[in-house]
Amino acid sequence: MQAVGMVVEYNPFHNGHRYLLHQACQKTGADVTVAVMSGNFTQRGEPTIVDKWTRTHAALENGVDLVVELPIFSAVQPAHRFAAGALAILNALQVRQVAFGAEHPDWDFTKLVTAERHFDQAEFNQYNATYATQFNAQLKAQTGVTLREPNDILAFSYTKEVLQHHYPIQLVPIQRRGSEYHDQQIHGRLASASAIRHAVANGKNLGKTVPWAMAIVLNQVKVVPSWDQLFPLLRNQLIQASTTRLARTYQMAEGLENRMKEVAQQTLTFDDFIHCLKTKRYTYAHLLRMCLYVVLQISEEEMAIRIRHPYIHILGFNNRGRAYLHQVKKQVSMPIFTKVSQQMRDHLYNLDYRAGKLYQNFTTVEQDLSHPPVMILKP
Amino acid sequence: MQAVGMVVEYNPFHNGHRYLLHQACQKTGADVTVAVMSGNFTQRGEPTIVDKWTRTHAALENGVDLVVELPIFSAVQPAHRFAAGALAILNALQVRQVAFGAEHPDWDFTKLVTAERHFDQAEFNQYNATYATQFNAQLKAQTGVTLREPNDILAFSYTKEVLQHHYPIQLVPIQRRGSEYHDQQIHGRLASASAIRHAVANGKNLGKTVPWAMAIVLNQVKVVPSWDQLFPLLRNQLIQASTTRLARTYQMAEGLENRMKEVAQQTLTFDDFIHCLKTKRYTYAHLLRMCLYVVLQISEEEMAIRIRHPYIHILGFNNRGRAYLHQVKKQVSMPIFTKVSQQMRDHLYNLDYRAGKLYQNFTTVEQDLSHPPVMILKP
Repeated sequence: MQAVGMVVEYNPFHNGHRYLLHQACQKTGADVTVAVMSGNFTQRGEPTIVDKWTRTHAALENGVDLVVELPIFSAVQPAHRFAAGALAILNALQVRQVAFGAEHPDWDFTKLVTAERHFDQAEFNQYNATYATQFNAQLKAQTGVTLREPNDILAFSYTKEVLQHHYPIQLVPIQRRGSEYHDQQIHGRLASASAIRHAVANGKNLGKTVPWAMAIVLNQVKVVPSWDQLFPLLRNQLIQASTTRLARTYQMAEGLENRMKEVAQQTLTFDDFIHCLKTKRYTYAHLLRMCLYVVLQISEEEMAIRIRHPYIHILGFNNRGRAYLHQVKKQVSMPIFTKVSQQMRDHLYNLDYRAGKLYQNFTTVEQDLSHPPVMILKP
Repeated sequence: MQAVGMVVEYNPFHNGHRYLLHQACQKTGADVTVAVMSGNFTQRGEPTIVDKWTRTHAALENGVDLVVELPIFSAVQPAHRFAAGALAILNALQVRQVAFGAEHPDWDFTKLVTAERHFDQAEFNQYNATYATQFNAQLKAQTGVTLREPNDILAFSYTKEVLQHHYPIQLVPIQRRGSEYHDQQIHGRLASASAIRHAVANGKNLGKTVPWAMAIVLNQVKVVPSWDQLFPLLRNQLIQASTTRLARTYQMAEGLENRMKEVAQQTLTFDDFIHCLKTKRYTYAHLLRMCLYVVLQISEEEMAIRIRHPYIHILGFNNRGRAYLHQVKKQVSMPIFTKVSQQMRDHLYNLDYRAGKLYQNFTTVEQDLSHPPVMILKP
């Protein structure tokens, strides 16, 4: 069997995802699809609209054969680390083709990655601009291209990873259709995940934008999980922990810990907090991720250790996915498991477990311990 | 002017407190009353039913002339530390008589304190009994007396402090009347604070047990502040912090950090949590205080520093209280202040400030920064 891999969030799974899956199979001729999916928190550092098990179920019912979890130490990261973690897993699973939605599938990303090698690192020191802005200034000067759309940035990161690690992986960009990433409106059968979440949060009709079973689940979501509900936990951590301790948080730099503490002391809602915190230096996505690192108390040291010890947590499969696992399992060079044991909870899987415990504030459902994978098997 | 001091919680202020105040003045002939009052958390480690400003107001309207805050590092402590912190403040304020409600005002507490000096410390190592149980076993063997009631234990502690520090303070025990401390029923005009809180929590009539103005305030309490609401914060701290870090919490011993983490991982309500946690070794009061130390992230080191730097935070006064402050202020050997400045927030007063921020989860009202004292002044 030959597999095509995709890196996904499915937050929630919608028709655009189904279209991409279909295209990926058609373009590659693969007979099995493998999705590496974020767990209960997204790349932007926000809780997902429904938990990873529900999203796995939706994926398996709509064309994915095998779903594995992208560990939180890779999932809640800027694009380059997100791509690095996901491609390492797909490579370990012997996936030789990776498809992704792209705004500009015709661009020569190899050329852009090569251009980056000549960037002047000294020019990344403007404290009133984000890293992305400074990166694009240099990229434009050298190549005329600007990476503005999320999928362009991911395409760039995937290409860089493949080149750097000499992965035997072919990247297969697929032209995106329908709504733009940031579009908040629902038109016809295609809408962005963001527009769908917005509709759920505001009790609006989802139309035909998501598969039928997903619509039923989403209609049952009473309160959309968000930072609003986690804010008391974040605020208390920022107030009670010393700045010395907060400064040890992963990615905490340039005195941001003082600013976060000060703003936490003066605000009572997450909305007020994040708007007071925002400066030109940091994107909202970066700040949201920082909030999650603070609540999960992830230090630089812990993150370094976690990243050095990746694993493959199987979230679900159907018959084809199971057959594929059987085919490749002897060649997989990472720990691979279907159930989280007590021992894993306290060691290898601990950070994902803690993230699941945080997510339990929304659903009360235990996320990991002894949870079996979703299996959609036909006799 | 001559002052009589009392150590109080006023949670909430009720007729029994008014009776004690009256008796204290009659017995001592004092012309000014000074109350050292717990802030927003009680000795048992629970949030108070209304905040310290509301309770100060009630005290000043019902016979107290000067209210000062018992800092949380003394207030949320076992009886001996609670008494030590309170008497040090009253002594610094030149108070020469201290009155308190007593179950056995006729007991010779000096004799009991002397007996304790001959206790065998080696006998405090039973891991299936509380400290209090082991203490009473030895006390009974030597004197025939058992300290069972909270006020007996406090009377013992006050006596011990006075003897140890040679404070020029006369202790004035006053026979308690009416309901017992643990009585949950409301009869007539006298009821225990505990019975009154229970009535408020269950929307029952308070009858004539509290002064009229206090009844109005209590009738407006929609949700009684409790650990139920703070549990998500406690649970997250116990799950996210490492056991090494939790072990550094003030008073954490005998591996209790492991037990607290394990139980937090398995429970979703405070009720389940505290009942799973309880053993014969620790009282509920001890465990509740431990919960607060964890949420406020108080380490052994921080507590040691805080206890070495006491202060007098004036919560409120009337004309007599102001005149008394004026009379004694030059002899007060502790920092004394009426407003918490930005500088105090970050240093001397930091722990009380953080406790106020935690209490803000109930009321949204800023507790300390630049808060003026309650002043009930007549021209």
